[in-house]
Amino acid sequence: MTSTALLTDRYELTMVQAALADGTAHRRSVFEVFTRSLPAGRRYGVLAGTGRVLDALASFRFGDAELAWLEAERVVDDRTLAWLADYRFGGTIVGYAEGETYVPGSPLMVVEGTFAEAVLLETLVLSILNFDSAIAAAASRMTSAAVDRPCLEMGARRAHEEAAVAAARAAVVAGFAGTSNLEAGRRYGLPTIGTAAHAYTLLHDDEEEAFRSQVASMGTGTTLLVDTYDVRRGVQRAVAAGGTGLGAVRLDSGDLGVLAIEVRRQLDGLGARDTQIVVTSDLDEHAIASLAVAPVDSYGVGTRLVTGSGAPTCGMVYKLVARADDDGTMQPVAKASTSKTSVGGRKSAARRYGPDGRASAEVVAGGPDDEVAAWSPDDDLRPLHVPLVVDGAIDHRWTGATGVRLAAERHRASRDELPRGARRLSAGEPTIPTERTTVARLAGRP
Amino acid sequence: MTSTALLTDRYELTMVQAALADGTAHRRSVFEVFTRSLPAGRRYGVLAGTGRVLDALASFRFGDAELAWLEAERVVDDRTLAWLADYRFGGTIVGYAEGETYVPGSPLMVVEGTFAEAVLLETLVLSILNFDSAIAAAASRMTSAAVDRPCLEMGARRAHEEAAVAAARAAVVAGFAGTSNLEAGRRYGLPTIGTAAHAYTLLHDDEEEAFRSQVASMGTGTTLLVDTYDVRRGVQRAVAAGGTGLGAVRLDSGDLGVLAIEVRRQLDGLGARDTQIVVTSDLDEHAIASLAVAPVDSYGVGTRLVTGSGAPTCGMVYKLVARADDDGTMQPVAKASTSKTSVGGRKSAARRYGPDGRASAEVVAGGPDDEVAAWSPDDDLRPLHVPLVVDGAIDHRWTGATGVRLAAERHRASRDELPRGARRLSAGEPTIPTERTTVARLAGRP
Repeated sequence: MTSTALLTDRYELTMVQAALADGTAHRRSVFEVFTRSLPAGRRYGVLAGTGRVLDALASFRFGDAELAWLEAERVVDDRTLAWLADYRFGGTIVGYAEGETYVPGSPLMVVEGTFAEAVLLETLVLSILNFDSAIAAAASRMTSAAVDRPCLEMGARRAHEEAAVAAARAAVVAGFAGTSNLEAGRRYGLPTIGTAAHAYTLLHDDEEEAFRSQVASMGTGTTLLVDTYDVRRGVQRAVAAGGTGLGAVRLDSGDLGVLAIEVRRQLDGLGARDTQIVVTSDLDEHAIASLAVAPVDSYGVGTRLVTGSGAPTCGMVYKLVARADDDGTMQPVAKASTSKTSVGGRKSAARRYGPDGRASAEVVAGGPDDEVAAWSPDDDLRPLHVPLVVDGAIDHRWTGATGVRLAAERHRASRDELPRGARRLSAGEPTIPTERTTVARLAGRP
Repeated sequence: MTSTALLTDRYELTMVQAALADGTAHRRSVFEVFTRSLPAGRRYGVLAGTGRVLDALASFRFGDAELAWLEAERVVDDRTLAWLADYRFGGTIVGYAEGETYVPGSPLMVVEGTFAEAVLLETLVLSILNFDSAIAAAASRMTSAAVDRPCLEMGARRAHEEAAVAAARAAVVAGFAGTSNLEAGRRYGLPTIGTAAHAYTLLHDDEEEAFRSQVASMGTGTTLLVDTYDVRRGVQRAVAAGGTGLGAVRLDSGDLGVLAIEVRRQLDGLGARDTQIVVTSDLDEHAIASLAVAPVDSYGVGTRLVTGSGAPTCGMVYKLVARADDDGTMQPVAKASTSKTSVGGRKSAARRYGPDGRASAEVVAGGPDDEVAAWSPDDDLRPLHVPLVVDGAIDHRWTGATGVRLAAERHRASRDELPRGARRLSAGEPTIPTERTTVARLAGRP
């Protein structure tokens, strides 16, 4: 298992060094992950990456190779190196379940431990959650626009090679049916798809020969790419090669709405009534919505998915919100200068519902640290925090293929209960307001 | 070494299967990487990631684990599995040197081999080049805007954790002075930077105590973050803690231009004339340019760098441009339908210069496959293709820390010779035109 410990900004290690020297490193601390706003016009966010955070945490170890490099580069002093050598996160992490929808201010993850053990995780936690959630948010809009038609992830070539694997995973969390990415299939048990590119047709001396060869190798259920030369002739040759039982044809260029109507008519005329039409050219949620009336059977989405459809990151931050003083009493803390202010103190969260059964508010409750940590909301509120790590023990239910399945279920349920307007693609405000309150007030205490 | 072989779209493997079955898999083939356009308004592109492509190629092996998964999932048949088990890329790759500037149509990389051995690399090559080049292009505009002031990469938290490492590397290729990312430092020998976050100040009972502790641990050369509470008081406390020899103060919020002037005046008034000012809040090339007259010493750039400053990918494609027919004669090929057309045939490239010594055109020369492969341009043209892999042997000069250093040198030289207008940040056309010609015409033959 490769160490994830250096996927970290240098300042986290230098802060640990200084805090070890002055004794504050061991102060109990609470860090919160939240976002100050959604990308412009977005109505909800989608938390994704939790399972990957837990996997990365399991490999967050400073081994000999990492320590030797830190020593050679004099990044930190010997005392700090010794402390890092023994590092195991022994704290507790709660957070929104992966797949959950969120709004600005939602306390998406709460990391509690000593200052030193918790501060070290800042970069890694944010890298994963910011990227995966950006993809999931875009994917959710796409699957929403596609209604019941499957969306297929094909964006690997337009993203960093490992980011592509995470993007495929996040897309499936937000309702995609499969991915072209083999590593994502292997790592997370996702269905993989794909048959041939234009290169395959160009490799052959003529198009029908390429189609016959593909059908001979992959069976009549395959998908033939029909737009290398001329779509009309391509469809003709596809049915000639695959017969009326051909699985699908794929269109990867041109005016897809118009082409799909023509191709459907042509396929039906040739008797290939069950042959499906897959479209794949520069789609995003708006293009998908505009194809709603076209006779398209599934959407392959690439570039716009893996780049977050205009919002390639989420702006989540990892902020110290409370820490112990010398007596061990937890004190809320927050940056207080001109901009980028935060609300200090530990928060928990629950979703409130209206009489129609749909979400009506994000309840974010503060108060004394121990009260918030122990809070469980009333029956009319759905608690949003689930335990992820307890005293260093990772709950592996949220990782691997099971984690992705649970996250996809959570996302579907969470999105279904948002107000109806939440799924509109036009720019708007967050779909539910954030209600800032305290645990005491929620319990009817003053 | 982890295998990179499954960082691949499924259709590449299914194409290999079908081509092995019909005998076309072994046809000599030439694939070209190019981009049809630059991101809207950009005047030049920057090729980055070549060294990473070569590293990834070295690990592109189907080991037992990969083969077992492909077999279990029935991705390909037994013949294909056997072929994959023996897979080693034995072809030849030439391309623009990493760091080189480019324009639309530049043949950035040319991969030659059998169809099967070359088609397999499509996704991995594009993932790396599209991401790394997007970051390098944004970084180049930033370092250009910063003129002689150092730019520092701090964006890990806003990018996928491994993409962040690649982004730091690409930023350094395009002139950044260092990165906060420790893994990038370790893997590519990059300078790493960073001292403390707001959390460090908030951990302590008061700001001056935090500063004193940091100076005690890291020395007076450290950078103190002065905007946790009130910048004016922060600067006062910083000099009180670090003395007039304090290395730097960092501003991470507010109106940085105005603040920098006030802080410079205050530092000078306190006698801390050599204490530098680092600014780090949501910078991009435009913000950097607008700070040109402010007394700022260096720029820390995060989100906008790692998301490509509005262009998170490059749209590079990997297209079959020529392949052998049954006689072994190379035939140019190209998609010919309504949109997304390509120019068939192998191309080479060179840069033409004007009388002022600056680049005046991108000369892209086609012709018979063997002529283009053997072409060397006249003295007034600078050839752009360098050998990267010869008959399967990787030229490791382009990888590791050496590769990054060479790429940074290439980028500086290449950018310096572009027309003066190339460095304007406003939207514009590609800085030099693409001159499509043939090797014969360049040699004065008809």
